[in-house]
Amino acid sequence: MVLRLSSADADFEARFAALLAMKREVSEDVDAVVATILDEVRRNGDAALIELSKRFDRVDLEAVGLQVTDAEIDAAAADCDPETLKALTFARDRIESHHRRQMPANETYRDDIGVELGHRWTALDSVGLYVPGGTAAYPSSVLMNAVPAKVAGVDRLAMVVPAPDGKLSPLVLAAAKLAGVDEVFRVGGAQAIGALAYGTATIKPVAKIVGPGNAYVAAAKRRVFGTVGIDMIAGPSEVLVIADKTGNPDWIAADLLAQAEHDASAQSILITDDAGLADAVEAAVERQLAVLPRKDIASASWRDFGAIILVGQIDEATALADRIAPEHLEIVAEDADDLSDAIRHAGAIFLGAHTPEAIGDYVGGSNHVLPTARTARFASGLGVLDFLKRTSILRCGPEQLKALGGAAIALGEAEGLHAHARSVSIRMN
Amino acid sequence: MVLRLSSADADFEARFAALLAMKREVSEDVDAVVATILDEVRRNGDAALIELSKRFDRVDLEAVGLQVTDAEIDAAAADCDPETLKALTFARDRIESHHRRQMPANETYRDDIGVELGHRWTALDSVGLYVPGGTAAYPSSVLMNAVPAKVAGVDRLAMVVPAPDGKLSPLVLAAAKLAGVDEVFRVGGAQAIGALAYGTATIKPVAKIVGPGNAYVAAAKRRVFGTVGIDMIAGPSEVLVIADKTGNPDWIAADLLAQAEHDASAQSILITDDAGLADAVEAAVERQLAVLPRKDIASASWRDFGAIILVGQIDEATALADRIAPEHLEIVAEDADDLSDAIRHAGAIFLGAHTPEAIGDYVGGSNHVLPTARTARFASGLGVLDFLKRTSILRCGPEQLKALGGAAIALGEAEGLHAHARSVSIRMN
Repeated sequence: MVLRLSSADADFEARFAALLAMKREVSEDVDAVVATILDEVRRNGDAALIELSKRFDRVDLEAVGLQVTDAEIDAAAADCDPETLKALTFARDRIESHHRRQMPANETYRDDIGVELGHRWTALDSVGLYVPGGTAAYPSSVLMNAVPAKVAGVDRLAMVVPAPDGKLSPLVLAAAKLAGVDEVFRVGGAQAIGALAYGTATIKPVAKIVGPGNAYVAAAKRRVFGTVGIDMIAGPSEVLVIADKTGNPDWIAADLLAQAEHDASAQSILITDDAGLADAVEAAVERQLAVLPRKDIASASWRDFGAIILVGQIDEATALADRIAPEHLEIVAEDADDLSDAIRHAGAIFLGAHTPEAIGDYVGGSNHVLPTARTARFASGLGVLDFLKRTSILRCGPEQLKALGGAAIALGEAEGLHAHARSVSIRMN
Repeated sequence: MVLRLSSADADFEARFAALLAMKREVSEDVDAVVATILDEVRRNGDAALIELSKRFDRVDLEAVGLQVTDAEIDAAAADCDPETLKALTFARDRIESHHRRQMPANETYRDDIGVELGHRWTALDSVGLYVPGGTAAYPSSVLMNAVPAKVAGVDRLAMVVPAPDGKLSPLVLAAAKLAGVDEVFRVGGAQAIGALAYGTATIKPVAKIVGPGNAYVAAAKRRVFGTVGIDMIAGPSEVLVIADKTGNPDWIAADLLAQAEHDASAQSILITDDAGLADAVEAAVERQLAVLPRKDIASASWRDFGAIILVGQIDEATALADRIAPEHLEIVAEDADDLSDAIRHAGAIFLGAHTPEAIGDYVGGSNHVLPTARTARFASGLGVLDFLKRTSILRCGPEQLKALGGAAIALGEAEGLHAHARSVSIRMN
């Protein structure tokens, strides 16, 4: 039985608050271990990477080389199923063309007293992309992280990916090639983050590190933040579906399960005003679960974190959605547009019955790296802006200095910063 | 004697690299203390704030109240010098009108196969603003942090400021009122960050925390990152001046000292192609230092971290500037525009002889919260975007699903995510 709530119940607020407060991840305290690993990498560089990769990934980097060669990447790509490569290329092109529209404009203007103000965007010189190994090595995520960086104009994009027992995913390497990744290194964990942040003889340091990882990777990113930029710390994925009576229970169930199959700590929630739909979706989930290859994972997620919430009116759903601040929000309802307009906190919104989240995960063109765990309250999905920074520009002539100088001097004096005031007054006399 | 380098010297590269690598801050390891404080605040809420403020700030919050009342704020503002208030209001208006231009546009479009893609910007619901106490309590910084938040549309802006021995800066309170800050609490340190992140009975939690602070505040922000958003971790301030023979040595010296008076760990650097100017600026710095109220601080900064770098041609300066990635960059040269265009990494550029950095610090209109310590390689100054987040929007109809579905199914299957593939195929049959 999945959790069922109804906004008509007397204890609804308490139960909904409990659902929101639910911890879906055990936060391992790996901070001390990570601090040691980072320190080793900073002191010993490549030698530390070799030693740590032996220990954690059972791979001898001295034998196989830290950097994955172009020949290896080409061979891996040649090994991939042509249909999959075609789909990856299609996805790459759509992601690229959508993200090109995100390029912000430079601007310069003169205000009413003639002060010239402006800003200019420039790309980061270099970016590191962390790609997890094992089952979470998704070629689509390589595209979603790498393509916006390249669209922004990042010159050097260095990817790190662990090679447990020496193994790398051919599709991940193919995606790296398609996305224009410049360098690939077979190293993962906190040691890879350390290498990207501090640099080693083989891996030059980068300006920013993006990409998801396990608890060690997340702790390492948190620690190197400031030395380099980092993206959000990703948590388990989630979907919220808002549906009225027009919803197709089988389709909605399929979407809830697409989320649930990611990870036992993923979360799928349905909010509906139709009790019949609620029952039908629950039944459809059970039916579909039976035939899913990743049924164990999806069942655990649905059982532990899934929920169906019944509301009196469908427009009650938007306030609840804002409190959930879901990574993914599907809206299937007659007045989907109005409901969407009322939403304030969501990573991405998928509108209408024919927009399953999986389209956005792969080929919609928008980014699938989105804020999880209620962070859509303050964070955005990955985009071109994450690979650019803005320099502000200011210019005064003698007249503008005269117009602004008095106030600047007054504030400098008031703050006890007399040299600030003096740097203005010396030009006015 | 200040550090003098010349790009013609054989050991220039090594000495310049040493200048870049110079540690200007002793990083105190306060992480364990901060973890304990955050934990106390999370468990005991207001009681912890009361106890910790007694211990660290010698103030009894039970007696004076955690929240600063409107009456107190009004009384503080009434106490301020009217000329200073006028200057603050002038600054507020200019910051507001410049930041209004930063508001990004929402966008929706249909691509060539009819897929609707778009994004929408929404303001954060609530933001916490940390303001340091003591000598670093700058009303101008209150404006620079609070005004962009309000321009973005943040509904609730809660300010925290420590009150050592019960004392608050009247100008800081006046600036908070001018900037539209909604709530002010007299609490500082890691405990204030904990209160903003987790909430207490008196202080409701916020979505993001901005504002500078000491090592405890910085460590606390790093720890709560993820629960809330945070801005950059600010380091000591710095200026780089690029000047050719047209530079006025007294003016340049005044600007170098305006930076140096901030903090003994501030850094002021001049790069010039004119040996005469280099000597004249060095002499002017010494002369001006003698009469500065904050001469001890400014001398220490100039002695320990100041530098004058002589280059053969002025356009050599841009590559060096990019390696320094200065927070503030002043360019005083005949071809200032060309030099500026060549710069990739700088927080803010001040063009021409009549644009001292102090104008930008107070009344230029652009933001003075800028990336320090070489973080301009990956970070931008504070702006309206820091208080907004973007929700992406995707809509397909049956035809678009048909056009995209095959590739999505192929990628879902290839990634072993069959429920993803199924959520698409179930709609296509």
